[in-house]
Amino acid sequence: MRILGIDPGLRTLGWGVIESQGSRLAHVANGLCKSGTGDLAARLLTLHEQLTEVIARHAPEAAAIEQTFVNKDGAGTLKLGQARGVALLALAQAGLEVGEYAPNRVKKTIVGAGHADKAQILYMVRLQLPGCEPAGPDAADALAIAMCHAHFGGRAAPELREVRA
Amino acid sequence: MRILGIDPGLRTLGWGVIESQGSRLAHVANGLCKSGTGDLAARLLTLHEQLTEVIARHAPEAAAIEQTFVNKDGAGTLKLGQARGVALLALAQAGLEVGEYAPNRVKKTIVGAGHADKAQILYMVRLQLPGCEPAGPDAADALAIAMCHAHFGGRAAPELREVRA
Repeated sequence: MRILGIDPGLRTLGWGVIESQGSRLAHVANGLCKSGTGDLAARLLTLHEQLTEVIARHAPEAAAIEQTFVNKDGAGTLKLGQARGVALLALAQAGLEVGEYAPNRVKKTIVGAGHADKAQILYMVRLQLPGCEPAGPDAADALAIAMCHAHFGGRAAPELREVRA
Repeated sequence: MRILGIDPGLRTLGWGVIESQGSRLAHVANGLCKSGTGDLAARLLTLHEQLTEVIARHAPEAAAIEQTFVNKDGAGTLKLGQARGVALLALAQAGLEVGEYAPNRVKKTIVGAGHADKAQILYMVRLQLPGCEPAGPDAADALAIAMCHAHFGGRAAPELREVRA
């Protein structure tokens, strides 16, 4: 099963595609969508076009996205929400069901600890996806999200809702 | 000039289209896009499809959207942000520039007071757009946003940035 993982962000959106067969994982591709510096609507359009192109090129059968950590920085939450909305739309337009995982769940699944740092994530991504060189931290996170989704069977299944809590 | 106003929301997104010629305004259409009860990505897809259809049907030349009030309700901000992102995307895909107005700016422009209530907004919308019956409070707000944009010349012009502050 081919799985697309997404780490959403307005400035930079990381993506990673892996192939999973049972417990065997392989790297397919990864990269960053960047929204540039125009006005907000134009930046969202750029993100949507790039992500739609990624989906068309790599034809994933499943998708997963990082659950957004909501804090008291309302302006930051709004920016991230707008980018996340456009990413979810692109996935839905491609007919993909979307799994959602909290960052700590991804870390615990990939590294074994909920508070793993970026270097540990990168280490495990490289270890489990031989030959993979992430385009940046956001792409490494996106690959980790895809790996997490593979671990849970690649389905946005109801039973995962408990896991998310 | 035909202007589309949008009051964004995840559950209900209000829209209103007016025609402005100098200081003369006329109602064209208004309505509500509702996202139903599916999963988040499916709801965003529904909103996007409905809004894209509204844009195709009424062919606005300009658009304006309510500036989102950011508060400490992070979860609410995230939901609204996701819906707002999808709305901005639909406008950008149609090649429309988007004016943004804070709620108080809209109220002050339409009613003359920054803290006008919903009933006053509705009264002024009906008064200035004869024959118009808004489909609900969100549609009335959307029409008010379009009227505000008409007042400022229907352009997402740099000088408006001062007004927004």
